[in-house]
Parts: sequence; C-alpha cells; structure tokens
Amino acid sequence: MADQERAAVAVAPRRRTSDTGLRRRAAAVIPGGMYGHQSAGPLPPEYPQFMRRGRGARIWDVDGNRYVDLMCSYGPVVLGHQHPAVEEAARAQAALADCQNGPGPVLVDLAELLVATVRHADWAMFAKNGTDATTMCCTIARAQTGRNKILLAHGAYHGAAPWCTPRLAGTTPQDRANLGYFTFNDLDRARPAAAAAGDDLAGILVSPFRHDAGYDQELVDPAFAAGLRELCDAAGAALILDDVRAGFRLHLGSSWEPIGVDPDLSAWSKAIANGYPLAAVLGGDAFRRGASDVFVTGSFWFSAVPMAAAIATIGALRDQDAIAAMERAGSALRDGILRQAAARELDVAYTGPVQMPYLSFAGDRDHALAGVFAAEAVRRGAFAQPRHNWFGAAAMTAGDIAAVLAATDEAFGAVSRSLRR
Amino acid sequence: MADQERAAVAVAPRRRTSDTGLRRRAAAVIPGGMYGHQSAGPLPPEYPQFMRRGRGARIWDVDGNRYVDLMCSYGPVVLGHQHPAVEEAARAQAALADCQNGPGPVLVDLAELLVATVRHADWAMFAKNGTDATTMCCTIARAQTGRNKILLAHGAYHGAAPWCTPRLAGTTPQDRANLGYFTFNDLDRARPAAAAAGDDLAGILVSPFRHDAGYDQELVDPAFAAGLRELCDAAGAALILDDVRAGFRLHLGSSWEPIGVDPDLSAWSKAIANGYPLAAVLGGDAFRRGASDVFVTGSFWFSAVPMAAAIATIGALRDQDAIAAMERAGSALRDGILRQAAARELDVAYTGPVQMPYLSFAGDRDHALAGVFAAEAVRRGAFAQPRHNWFGAAAMTAGDIAAVLAATDEAFGAVSRSLRR
Repeated sequence: MADQERAAVAVAPRRRTSDTGLRRRAAAVIPGGMYGHQSAGPLPPEYPQFMRRGRGARIWDVDGNRYVDLMCSYGPVVLGHQHPAVEEAARAQAALADCQNGPGPVLVDLAELLVATVRHADWAMFAKNGTDATTMCCTIARAQTGRNKILLAHGAYHGAAPWCTPRLAGTTPQDRANLGYFTFNDLDRARPAAAAAGDDLAGILVSPFRHDAGYDQELVDPAFAAGLRELCDAAGAALILDDVRAGFRLHLGSSWEPIGVDPDLSAWSKAIANGYPLAAVLGGDAFRRGASDVFVTGSFWFSAVPMAAAIATIGALRDQDAIAAMERAGSALRDGILRQAAARELDVAYTGPVQMPYLSFAGDRDHALAGVFAAEAVRRGAFAQPRHNWFGAAAMTAGDIAAVLAATDEAFGAVSRSLRR
Repeated sequence: MADQERAAVAVAPRRRTSDTGLRRRAAAVIPGGMYGHQSAGPLPPEYPQFMRRGRGARIWDVDGNRYVDLMCSYGPVVLGHQHPAVEEAARAQAALADCQNGPGPVLVDLAELLVATVRHADWAMFAKNGTDATTMCCTIARAQTGRNKILLAHGAYHGAAPWCTPRLAGTTPQDRANLGYFTFNDLDRARPAAAAAGDDLAGILVSPFRHDAGYDQELVDPAFAAGLRELCDAAGAALILDDVRAGFRLHLGSSWEPIGVDPDLSAWSKAIANGYPLAAVLGGDAFRRGASDVFVTGSFWFSAVPMAAAIATIGALRDQDAIAAMERAGSALRDGILRQAAARELDVAYTGPVQMPYLSFAGDRDHALAGVFAAEAVRRGAFAQPRHNWFGAAAMTAGDIAAVLAATDEAFGAVSRSLRR
C-alpha cells in the first residue's frame, strides 16, 4: 500500500451528514428506524446505516466515506463487489428477461452445475432466502419420512421465520413444538435428543461449524459430524447441512466435504450468486420423492438473472481459485491481527475459518471491548462488525489487508487505552 | 391488427425442440421435473416449460414461439416486460450497488413513497417473497397483541410456507394449530370464528377478493369487508389485507381503498417492482410497536436494485395512468371473449376484476374444457392458464388484444368441437 493511501485511511474525517438525515427520515417510516440484521441500531454510533456503492473489496457509505469491506454484505459478496464476469452474465440475462411465466434455460444449467460441483447433490431447487432453503429442507425431510421432529443445536441461527427466528416476539409455542435440541460438537447430547424424538425423527439440522452470532466460533469435530451421520442413518432421518452462511466460502462443494461427511439435504444462499438474490436446496436421490411431494414456491423463485449470476459466480470461484485466495488473505489478516493484539498484550480469540473469522476479547461479556475496537476500526476505514463473524472476499488485495491492519492496529490501541482508564 | 400478423398467430407451427430437451435434462436434476407454481406439469402439453424473453406484452419461449402474455409472470409484470423507465432505474442502481452492508437511500425513498401512496400505511418493511410478507403480518399482529390466533378464509392462498401452503406434504399439525377459518364474503361464518378465538384473536387475514386458484373469482362484498374491520376493532385484533396478488393492479393504493375499508397491516409483492424481487409489509401506527419487536430478515432484503425498480414502477403506474389502461384493455378482452362464447353458445363465467380475470366453463369440474381452451389458445399464441386467474399489463395494445381474441376464438371453437364429440 502506498504511504499516501495509508495516510488517507488513517486520517480522513468521517462525514455523516447524509446518513444522519436518512436515519431521521427512516425513523418516521421504518419501525424502529431499521429492522433485521442490517440495522445499525445495535452497533457503535460510528457505523453508517446507509451504503452507497462498492467495487472489489472497497465500499463507500452514503457520505462518501470509504472502507475495506470485511462484512461483504453479511456474506453474499464472495468474489468482490461488481465482479466483472458476474455483472456481465447478469446484464446479458437481464437484457432478455428475469421473471417470466417459467424458468429460463439457466435454471437447468445451474442445477446441473450444482449437481456436478457438490458431491452429495443429485438434484436442486431454488428459492430467494436462506430461510426458504432451511425451511424447505425441514419440510422435505418431513415429507420423505412422514415424521415431524427436527433436531438442531442450541443457539444456532437457521433463519428468521417463526420456527427459527432468534427473537420470540410474535411467534407461538406451536412454531417450535417439533424441534429438539443438542449442543454443537457434543455427540453425547445429540444421541439422547435423537432417542427422545424416537420414531418421529425426521432430520437433524446443523451448521458446518458453530457460528452463533456474538460467540466464539468453533470448527466441527469430524467425529461429531460422522456421529450425526450415523444417527440419521440409524433412524432413517435426514442429515441437513445449513451451508447458507458458509457455502462456497470454505470449499467448492459442501463445507463438510473436506471432512468426508455428506448430508442428505443442504441449504444454500448468500455467496451462491455474489450478491444476487438466490437460495438453493440440494439433495440426494434418497430424498428426491419428498422434494417432489412438497409444494413450495415464490413469485421470484424462477427469475433468471440471479441464476445466470450464480453460474458465473461458481465459474469464477473455480477459475480464479478464489477459495484459496480467500484463505491466503484471511490467514494474512489473522496473523497480522494476532500479532497486533500480542504486541499490546491483549488477550483475544480469533476463531472460525480465516475466511469467516470472529474476534473477541477475553472476559468481554457485554461486547464492550469489541465495540471499542470496531468503532475505531470503522472510523479508520475497516468495516467489520463487533457481534458477528466477518466475511472475506477473493477481491481483497495486499493493499486492502495492509489498510485493514493499519486500522486494526489503531483499534487495538483504543482498546488498550479504554482498559487503562 | 394487420391481417399478416393475425395469420402469423393462427398458423405458425409451434416449435418445441429446445423445450423438450430442457425438460429431459430438468427431469434428472429437478425433483419432479419442476416445482412450484411455474411447473408446466399440470398444464396441457402444448404449454412450454421454459421461457426465453419478453418485451411489452409479448413473450417468447425457448423455441422462439411468440405469445401475447396473459399471465405476466404470474403477476409481477404489471407495466409490461422490459419497461424502459424501470429498467433504467434498475441499471442505474446496479451500477452503484445492490446487496451491501446496509440499505441504500432508496429504501427510505421507497418507504416514504409507499406511505404517501397507500392510505393506511404509516410505515413499511421489505422482504423478498409474498409469503415473507403474509408471514410477517401474522407475526407482527401476534407481537403487537400478545395473542396467537389468525383467522383466514377456507381455500385462500396466502403463500407456500408450512403454515399456509395448499399441499400438506411435509407440514405438521402444529403449523396450523393457531389458525381459524371462515368463508369469504360470509360474515355469518366469520363472526363465530372470531368468537371461538375469543381473547386469543391476533388478526384476520383476507385477500381483497376471492381469487382461489381453480375456482370462479368473487369480488368482495363491501359489507363483508366493513364487518371484518368491525370484528377486528371490537377484538383489538389486526385486520390484515393480503394484497400480494392484486396490489397495484386494481388501485394505486390498497385494493380496499375504493370500498373505504383500511386494514391495519397489508402484504405486498408481485407487481410492486414490475418483476424485480421485492415484497413489503405496510402498516399503521397502531401496529408499529409490534413491527419493531419482531426479528425478521433475509440476506437480500436490503438490496437496492429492486427498491429502485419499485420506485420507478409506482411512478410509471401513476404517470401512465396504468391502472386505467389495464382496466380498458381488460374490459375489451372480457367483452370480446364473452361475445365469442355467446356466439358459440358456450356457458362460461368470466369472474374477478378485468385486470385479473378467471375464465371457466359451466359444469367443467375437472377443468377439462378449460384445458382444451387453454391448449388451443396457447398453441395460437395467447399465453393464459386454465387453472389460475390471468394477469393484465399496461403494455397491452389494441393489436395485442386482437391477437388474443383471434386465438381465443379458435380456442372456443376447439371447446365446441370437443363438446360435440
């Protein structure tokens, strides 16, 4: 990185006139000012609420402040913003049609590509939200088995429908009547949960690693994954992998392929089309009948543009060896951050895959230190998040990493100062 | 319509090589060959499964066969395919960004526009599917009231999540444990249903008219709508209007504004962005707290391109007086079709608003005659659907209507011949 650029990142005053004005207008016409995972309400006030544009690994908020993007739109952007091949594929399809009376040929092309790319997949179905995909997996598992119970890990996020949203407001007790719980990576808790479900066990739903928002992440113990596979096989139930958040960021295939455990059904979204709205359910032949029996649909589920974008995204991930690039950039970032923390004698945990890391400070139960860190980082041009894992993109350059590390070094300094106060 | 064009509609041989090939490939990688409302499986074999492009009111399938579009992508296309102002707004936004770490300014612009356009709306929230919006309405009603029960009409379609999908495969009894039922337009059935829910009544969910797929449609009795409003007021429950299918096709505002009944919450999608993927919940201040309390979100719910498209769509609907245009075209189509049926002494019902009509044949319980009609119509270039209401678009010209009527005249002829056999 040029010294000039480093200086720009470090000293640029943060403008916020437009963001403040938009927040004021939003307060009048949006309940609570903003909803969902992109609400800046719970974030330090240094965070912008409204964004303007992105290119590669750089993003700009509505006031023109520039950041290196460590959130990647909370996952969807995996190659980088405005990736030329993806944008060109989307533009070419959009010039013909998007939402029609039937799917375009790209639906079949994409389904074939996914079946060829993901080991456990014999078929594909498409939707719009990650929640659509996780819900469909449960519905398909129930249709195939004729049973009701789904097991999932305590605290895991599988979407925001009434059966799975982390906040109970507006849900009913019946929404979760058919769920059972285990602890991630603890087979000794999963076995009795399966036994309790007995012959009503339709499936076990699990994330490829523990990525509960606000907690240190935990990679999967391969024996745990294999144990869940065995439990499902013994019960005739579906092993369902929720690859919505991690899919196509860790492996070009399901995130459990490297450990040799194949699910029956898997849920995908986020990175599948580099930001275009798409979700998918992939499954094996053993669950094809159940998938044929359910009625699931949506007005835009057959739209062709996101499918064309997905084909280009998966192609670029492969051709650019993008996952290896994210690993390299993620490792450099991790090494630099851990070095910075050690130099200031700060006790941090940097957990999860390097493409999707989570930084926490020892004893920081209310995320106060994480907030100090994130506020200073974002002020200095590194857009991370204090209560959520970060997401890397293949577009991140050495210069981007250097810019992030310049910001995080100052952010660790702010944490040190806050601890001395 | 030029004679030349009429001849082209009437005699063009229907090519299907590409469609057949794609269907064969889809059978291998899509459960049941295709899923959801766009599956051509239940349609006569004359229907293409795969579509290539659209412009105005004309569409082309993958084999290059041309049709006048009477389905409009099952509703989303309301101005016509590739509407210049909408496409330009989407392109301009896409050149900046779509899915980011936060919404773009267009989210606030669109929320303000909807609040200004829809009488009962004080606020807006956005999602991707119509089902997202109907589900959110129920969740918000429950959060606000602290109650569980939702009443809805027997046979009404409110989406394809487990609580509402018309096919029960893969759902559990608990998914519908908090639903009660009434008959559309029958206040004498709604009152006891509300009484049975008692002090657990959270809301009444209703479509602006009866548009159950496969049945004659029924316009709302204003006294019924007012009666539901009174029931909700008396119970402190939410009146929820499901305007997903009809919204912005009948009125520039909620579809019940012309009859003077305002809901507390309303669900929107389909026509809101002329084919771009967007859904919305609109609500009044009395339910703002409930809307703030729920946690609902999705990876692409903040994407800016569909919001820019929605602003352009609503603007064009207003500036072009598009709803009046659809009414005029729809009336001409209805008059012509009823004239053709009468000339052949066929007993048909042509029900619902002229922008969203449904054609049925007397005594045609298994839709056999409707199938004969639709097959001949689609073969001659009019893309309707035998078991679903049709959708009009503002782009439909006098020439398009003449082309449709040329096809439907032949289609009625086919029905007559089939009855004589």
